[in-house]
Amino acid sequence: MVVNTPEPPYTAVIFTSVRTPEETGYDEATAQMVALAAEQPGFLGMESARAALGITVSYWENDEAARAWKRVAEHAVIQRRGRAEWYAAYQVRVATVTREYGHESGPGRR
Amino acid sequence: MVVNTPEPPYTAVIFTSVRTPEETGYDEATAQMVALAAEQPGFLGMESARAALGITVSYWENDEAARAWKRVAEHAVIQRRGRAEWYAAYQVRVATVTREYGHESGPGRR
Repeated sequence: MVVNTPEPPYTAVIFTSVRTPEETGYDEATAQMVALAAEQPGFLGMESARAALGITVSYWENDEAARAWKRVAEHAVIQRRGRAEWYAAYQVRVATVTREYGHESGPGRR
Repeated sequence: MVVNTPEPPYTAVIFTSVRTPEETGYDEATAQMVALAAEQPGFLGMESARAALGITVSYWENDEAARAWKRVAEHAVIQRRGRAEWYAAYQVRVATVTREYGHESGPGRR
């Protein structure tokens, strides 16, 4: 679902990735990282989609919350395993959301 | 593929959407909007993925390029059709990318 973020400014971390064919442990690790992120201070929500490319955007109250999450994530063993096994390439972009607008014609946003 | 963006700062427009079941004309309209975006000044690239949620991130040289794209897109008939037919909900977030880092272990990034 579309995350119901607060009034900008807040921080978006855009994680774009290309997977390897290796599936072992991936879904479990992803669920663990999502649960870990949700426990962090300043976490606002996360959106995720995957086709040939995967895109996950996590939202944070501010830049410091996003930096703190990076430090937590780097210590997670599963992130190192991800680099070695599951991702052929990835790029992480940290951005300050300055404005937003949307549309809702029915259920879907929360 | 992961877009090969320049050194920050640059602008990211994060478009998150929930589709309706209506498929008629959607793929063609999407291809048209992608082609139209690619013609605009300051366009740096676009990444897209869809599962239950769709996420498309377009990258722009600066905020003014992103604003100009919004004006162009609003005049596209297909955007109004999109709101009426294809999207149950969407959210557009405009953000300034302040830092990025990545990893590449093989083909995939360009």
